[in-house]
Amino acid sequence: MIERRKPIPIKEAITKVMDYIITGETEYISIVESYGRHLSEDLKATHDVPHFDRSPYDGFAVRALDTELARQNNPIEFEVIDHIGAGTVTNKKVQAFQAVRIMTGAQMPEGSDTVVMLELAKSFDRNGKSFIAVKRPFKTGENVSYRGEDAKKGEVLVTKGTKINPGIQAILATFGYAKVPVAKKPKVGLFATGTELLDVNDELVPGKIRNSNSYMISGQIERAGADVIYFGQLPDDFEMCFDAIKNALHKVDMLVTTGGVSVGDYDYLPGIYQKLGAEVLFNKVAMRPGSVTTVAQKDGKLLFGLSGNPSACYVGFELFTRPIIQTMLFSKKPHLRKEKALLGIDFPKVNPFTRLVRSNVTVSDGRLMVSPSGVDKSNIVMSLAGANALMILPGGTRGFSKGMEVDVFMLEDHTGSEWPW
Amino acid sequence: MIERRKPIPIKEAITKVMDYIITGETEYISIVESYGRHLSEDLKATHDVPHFDRSPYDGFAVRALDTELARQNNPIEFEVIDHIGAGTVTNKKVQAFQAVRIMTGAQMPEGSDTVVMLELAKSFDRNGKSFIAVKRPFKTGENVSYRGEDAKKGEVLVTKGTKINPGIQAILATFGYAKVPVAKKPKVGLFATGTELLDVNDELVPGKIRNSNSYMISGQIERAGADVIYFGQLPDDFEMCFDAIKNALHKVDMLVTTGGVSVGDYDYLPGIYQKLGAEVLFNKVAMRPGSVTTVAQKDGKLLFGLSGNPSACYVGFELFTRPIIQTMLFSKKPHLRKEKALLGIDFPKVNPFTRLVRSNVTVSDGRLMVSPSGVDKSNIVMSLAGANALMILPGGTRGFSKGMEVDVFMLEDHTGSEWPW
Repeated sequence: MIERRKPIPIKEAITKVMDYIITGETEYISIVESYGRHLSEDLKATHDVPHFDRSPYDGFAVRALDTELARQNNPIEFEVIDHIGAGTVTNKKVQAFQAVRIMTGAQMPEGSDTVVMLELAKSFDRNGKSFIAVKRPFKTGENVSYRGEDAKKGEVLVTKGTKINPGIQAILATFGYAKVPVAKKPKVGLFATGTELLDVNDELVPGKIRNSNSYMISGQIERAGADVIYFGQLPDDFEMCFDAIKNALHKVDMLVTTGGVSVGDYDYLPGIYQKLGAEVLFNKVAMRPGSVTTVAQKDGKLLFGLSGNPSACYVGFELFTRPIIQTMLFSKKPHLRKEKALLGIDFPKVNPFTRLVRSNVTVSDGRLMVSPSGVDKSNIVMSLAGANALMILPGGTRGFSKGMEVDVFMLEDHTGSEWPW
Repeated sequence: MIERRKPIPIKEAITKVMDYIITGETEYISIVESYGRHLSEDLKATHDVPHFDRSPYDGFAVRALDTELARQNNPIEFEVIDHIGAGTVTNKKVQAFQAVRIMTGAQMPEGSDTVVMLELAKSFDRNGKSFIAVKRPFKTGENVSYRGEDAKKGEVLVTKGTKINPGIQAILATFGYAKVPVAKKPKVGLFATGTELLDVNDELVPGKIRNSNSYMISGQIERAGADVIYFGQLPDDFEMCFDAIKNALHKVDMLVTTGGVSVGDYDYLPGIYQKLGAEVLFNKVAMRPGSVTTVAQKDGKLLFGLSGNPSACYVGFELFTRPIIQTMLFSKKPHLRKEKALLGIDFPKVNPFTRLVRSNVTVSDGRLMVSPSGVDKSNIVMSLAGANALMILPGGTRGFSKGMEVDVFMLEDHTGSEWPW
């Protein structure tokens, strides 16, 4: 008997999955390990920046007023009364026609309101005293970084959910975040199914292939920001499969299986969902590849039944599993980033289903261009290696031609898109 | 005394650094840990893919010849003589009007040359035997994935230097690469200098700021694909600095220092290079920020003297240090990826130096757009957090206006650019 399944549109399928988003948790880690993690709280300024008026240059702090008449042919002289390095302060106050030698980043001495850059000051000594001559006027505040100019205490500088990059690490350090609140990495369980599967270590035998999906999905889980818990290959026995999945479910935030969701005789997953008492959200999506992608929920925990076909498996993960992971990382844009690109080749073939073509997006003179990354047969693993995007070709009665604008989902991207696409 | 330094163009500075590229080394790691690493050898097919003729669908393997006259109103019957799952093989040969039930991925039985998809075959039993009826003709090879169709043994599938993504992990698994040859991560030593620097754990005191550069550069080193060896803050004493740097040099592939390269009184690095007998490749670059960036080499090992100013430090690393790291990772495009984008705002201010403005590149209707990611004063750390690009504004006598096309360097990118830019 062939089970009749009703395909639902991609957007509807994603909406159904997003009904079961899971709230992420916080953990505190050392700033040293924070690169690439996701902030679980807004990053706020813990003090004004700068927290004192400071000099952005090496030079001499003076009163702007005293430079007013300085010209090339009318140099004005200032007595250098002190010398401060970055990190030290002076207790002297700058008076009329006095200067304090100051280093980049050092605190402006009292009384001064501008800095004459080193290269614009001519130093000389007279009667055992140090002087500079200045040949142009400076305005009040010129070459001064004022307290709070960059950030005010309490200001939100980076919002929750942002992936930590080197610039954010600099901010964390500036504000004394030795420990950083980040989203705990979701734990994603993974099973492979398929009696045809050999392990990566096995020699090839007739009729069998090596399991590639588990390694691919592990990479995708890692790229999405989660940790993989690999439970190995499911046994070729319904009861053992059932027990394995039931036990695994307790140890993870969500569970991914690859294979076993088609309508073939060895496709156990539908039966397992039933016995588990899990609600199947959908078991057919109007898309190619990945139409047999099945998602179920058991007590709010999601079970992603991805296709055993590598391309279908890949696409199913990116569309349905990734946004749940990203939501647990507090991302406000958990979906694949969607952009527009110009089609680089013709696609004359018509397809009633929406196709998600493994593609390579390049930039040519500032414009996104997209072409398939390989022969687009759904069992061809090779094209996945070169794919940095999925091209979306809506189903219908016409083909697509070179130069047309199409939507693309970016795969190697941490910006994401909001819902609805 | 102010030392006179001659600024050289950015491209010339990069060329000088690239004279001292270091050849990377290989290590073998588990495929499970390979995500994000760089292949140190070309990835070749170790066998044909598929390595046997196989069915891409669930269905029935038959002889195409026998379906020739099949029509909606002329169903043709086939006797089902065997049943094979994926991973098993049949020893039966398909004869005229015989069919073998076959699962997705299973090996085609001898004699068969096409697969009737499950949903197009009507199954029934008669006299204790299984049959199917077929209502349309199939061509020879239709629904068959032929041996070697995806890849031929020995074919290069992914070139050396490529960063391993999930698709590449799938290929590695397919070809039995349980251990993967990857580039050893370069070891980049890091020192901070600056008496004004507090540690991230320290309370703020007047005139001092927390060290943010070390954390920022550590993130940049990690993003570029290398490991950081942080040696801490250099002491405020020339001889101790000299010893620390001399000793550190033996332990790393290259050494980065932040600060100490200006013309200020506490800028020890030039003296240290001299005492080390290191050759200074340049100590002034015609760019803003980062003009004081200094690079030296000692016995072929590079010493990157980056500015203590966070933005200048950031830019210096990306332009000069990153390509050396990427080269050690066997990348053929080790430089920051350069693209064109439309300027989102006016830049009326003229600058004789080339400016590298911390920017955010977005895509609008398929076109790259670029705007500064914050106020562009060189000591403002905040704008680094939002930067995914550096906008290049060539020095000269005119400003730039909204809508003009400018070059941008992409920071969150693993594609890179070849030389010359």
